[in-house]
Amino acid sequence: MPADLTDAPLTVTAFDWVPPFAQGLVRDLRVRWALKEAALPYEVELLAMGTQGAPAHLARQPFGQVPVLTTADTPMFESGAILWRIAEASGGALLPEDAAGRTRTLSWVFAALNTVEPPILMYQQLNRLPVDKAAAETIEREVRKAVERRLGQLQAAMEGRDWLAGAQFTVADLLMATVLRGLRDTPIVSQFPKLDVFLSDCTARPAFTEALAEQMAPFAENAARYAAE
Amino acid sequence: MPADLTDAPLTVTAFDWVPPFAQGLVRDLRVRWALKEAALPYEVELLAMGTQGAPAHLARQPFGQVPVLTTADTPMFESGAILWRIAEASGGALLPEDAAGRTRTLSWVFAALNTVEPPILMYQQLNRLPVDKAAAETIEREVRKAVERRLGQLQAAMEGRDWLAGAQFTVADLLMATVLRGLRDTPIVSQFPKLDVFLSDCTARPAFTEALAEQMAPFAENAARYAAE
Ligand SMILES: N[C@@H](CCC(=O)N[C@@H](CS)C(=O)NCC(=O)O)C(=O)O
Ligand SMILES: N[C@@H](CCC(=O)N[C@@H](CS)C(=O)NCC(=O)O)C(=O)O
Repeated sequence: MPADLTDAPLTVTAFDWVPPFAQGLVRDLRVRWALKEAALPYEVELLAMGTQGAPAHLARQPFGQVPVLTTADTPMFESGAILWRIAEASGGALLPEDAAGRTRTLSWVFAALNTVEPPILMYQQLNRLPVDKAAAETIEREVRKAVERRLGQLQAAMEGRDWLAGAQFTVADLLMATVLRGLRDTPIVSQFPKLDVFLSDCTARPAFTEALAEQMAPFAENAARYAAE
Repeated sequence: MPADLTDAPLTVTAFDWVPPFAQGLVRDLRVRWALKEAALPYEVELLAMGTQGAPAHLARQPFGQVPVLTTADTPMFESGAILWRIAEASGGALLPEDAAGRTRTLSWVFAALNTVEPPILMYQQLNRLPVDKAAAETIEREVRKAVERRLGQLQAAMEGRDWLAGAQFTVADLLMATVLRGLRDTPIVSQFPKLDVFLSDCTARPAFTEALAEQMAPFAENAARYAAE
């Protein structure tokens, strides 16, 4: 049986500051958003930037990253795992009631994280490689093609429906929206009208707006301190 | 409640042939291996190479890929989703009995697919970019560094234990092994002795050997036909 997240106080671990390109994209956002959709109360623990390699943190997050969700049971890492557990504990807020709908949701959760996100991560990371201009342009063009191919397939799959797994907003939509937001500095999503609407619908939800504001607040408070270092 | 995979005949969809670089790595291998570990019987449906974009296939796998697992309930896509469902139906063969162990396993499933696999996919795909030699070497070196960083962290996390999520082999180990096999054409895994032993232990399991032979058999049978085309 799954751990019951309602047993105990939940703590989300996030960073107290990140560079501007990452602000609003750090993955504790997914966790905060999902907890708000599920109406599960939580505390936040802020990790000082640069301390993520400390042994105590590595003991709960082997890759020295955020987010972590500390529960009564065991600390959890990986945003996908954390979100699936929150969805299971959400009493229908983030998962359909029927078995087939839950299974479809599970497929779409992995599609977001293992099919759509990898080329987007590639796109983000390759833009920083130390290569000459011609090579950089080739890489950019090829990886962009890979991203667009997936988004085209995603848009086709959403033809005639608002949400990925059926009639209701689920954890899969939430994850897919956070994945698509990884392209916010590009015009790519706007090339796909159906995905553009989907993303706007997702990010118009009050739980998203609140989660984003919550992630951003400490960055503003701590900016001066990090600038001084 | 999750769909019960023991309800009905299960069908795994795989390709009838793939180019040599992909033979033995196609992701239906994960599904076959897990079903054998769980002692769940299944049929195989072979998709002719080049027909994966047909509407009937896209209706069940929106990205035109394999694997698909057809169940009594609903067709499932995404190897990660399929494997989690198989693990839940495996009666302890692929998941610990206790809630904390299951939660740890879930975290490691996503770590395999969303933290370790993305740089490995990048490494595989970037080797085929049409760029000049100097740029190709820079890309290779940078992406290799990203892969090695993750494998170093993975090895550190496995210090003092044989399996990712605790005392027993789980679906997370199975997935991580298939992810590490994506580096089979490189010496990278052998730089990490603990991971090298882990991978050997996983692939020495009879269920793996049988699943691999089963995936490979039709490739040999159909090779002549595809060569002629
Ligand atoms: N697959 C992981 C990825 C987590 C991840 O990439 N976290 C980033 C922030 S969004 C991080 O902590 N980066 C700092 C680092 O890697 O040192 C998850 O989804 O939880
Ligand atoms: N994230 C997906 C990826 C599936 C995937 O990459 N499948 C490959 C074979 S290993 C495929 O079908 N490629 C053919 C294509 O993309 O047209 C999963 O794990 O199921």
